[in-house]
Amino acid sequence: MQERASEAPLPRPKTSRGEATRQKLIDAAIREIGRRGFADASVAGITQEAGVAQGTFYVYFRSKEEVLRELVLRMGRRLRHFLTQATTGAADRLEAERLGLVAFLRFVRDNPDLYRIVAEAQFVDFEAYRRYYDDFAAAYEEVLKAAVGRGEISPGHSGVRAWALMGIADMVGQRYALWDDQASLEEIAAAGYDLIAHGLSPKPAGDAR
Amino acid sequence: MQERASEAPLPRPKTSRGEATRQKLIDAAIREIGRRGFADASVAGITQEAGVAQGTFYVYFRSKEEVLRELVLRMGRRLRHFLTQATTGAADRLEAERLGLVAFLRFVRDNPDLYRIVAEAQFVDFEAYRRYYDDFAAAYEEVLKAAVGRGEISPGHSGVRAWALMGIADMVGQRYALWDDQASLEEIAAAGYDLIAHGLSPKPAGDAR
Repeated sequence: MQERASEAPLPRPKTSRGEATRQKLIDAAIREIGRRGFADASVAGITQEAGVAQGTFYVYFRSKEEVLRELVLRMGRRLRHFLTQATTGAADRLEAERLGLVAFLRFVRDNPDLYRIVAEAQFVDFEAYRRYYDDFAAAYEEVLKAAVGRGEISPGHSGVRAWALMGIADMVGQRYALWDDQASLEEIAAAGYDLIAHGLSPKPAGDAR
Repeated sequence: MQERASEAPLPRPKTSRGEATRQKLIDAAIREIGRRGFADASVAGITQEAGVAQGTFYVYFRSKEEVLRELVLRMGRRLRHFLTQATTGAADRLEAERLGLVAFLRFVRDNPDLYRIVAEAQFVDFEAYRRYYDDFAAAYEEVLKAAVGRGEISPGHSGVRAWALMGIADMVGQRYALWDDQASLEEIAAAGYDLIAHGLSPKPAGDAR
């Protein structure tokens, strides 16, 4: 596995024109790597897709690996931003879980390339892959602890819960949002939320949930 | 991505000596691909690891892709067998979930190479990867439906539940069994089981679960 922890990314461009070119290269890399996979994607393919000369790539990135690392970072930021927006205004943690799950499924269906890029990063830049999940889990854990403190959810192991909830979203997203473009995401999210909120236990008699 | 659906696997060896050599190659491939990753693993590395001549590989497999496909099939069979053994004798579905989760975590910790091989198959042979999960989910779904029928678990969307439960095991396994060799798997499984059985909802007053 390529380890490039010692290679700092190239500095960001100083002009807005440079920033626009860098952004064009990133968008092209999402399409090229998302479509062909990392091994088959090439710098030439990325620059062709972006409509710039091949040498321009190296003004902004050292390598295909560096661009993938940047895409994983963006995927994380974009997803977190999207989920924050979707869950703002939720009455409590359970409602936030419900809104967050349907938003995640929509995000996966709308961004199939980015979903794949993160999965593939595991084999190209393990540290970037792991950081993606660790950062997400750490933030999730804090949110769950705070919700326990407010009595919105039952007490429990917040770390395991964070990873388990990420796992539910990830695998249900893969099956029903990524591989299947017909399933109703609202219906799927409602079923997933029911498990998250209540678990599998038979409902006690008289429990009106 | 390489598509080899039209390539039938080579016939299995007719002698027990041939079968033993094939098995040696498979064990060596698990180590070679698990350790180096699919892209960097080579047929030469596999045969060296197995202690056979390089040409011997092609008596049993057409390509590195074919051997990976075989490894994914084996991973599925071995895991299912292991989980069946671990959950036999469970009093009901909830107990089977509890026993199955701790067994899965132990399996991941003991078989890190195989875990990685399945994940990487996604980018080498998507059909094999998808079949691995689809088969697992289909069997899981049937088991959940039967448990609903016996009143052991509450009614719900068995398909979404199957994928969600696989996702919990997968992500919790990645974090606490694959990346972490210190965490107590019993403790982690107990926390995961609590979510699976009861969900996040605050416990109603007087509920003695």
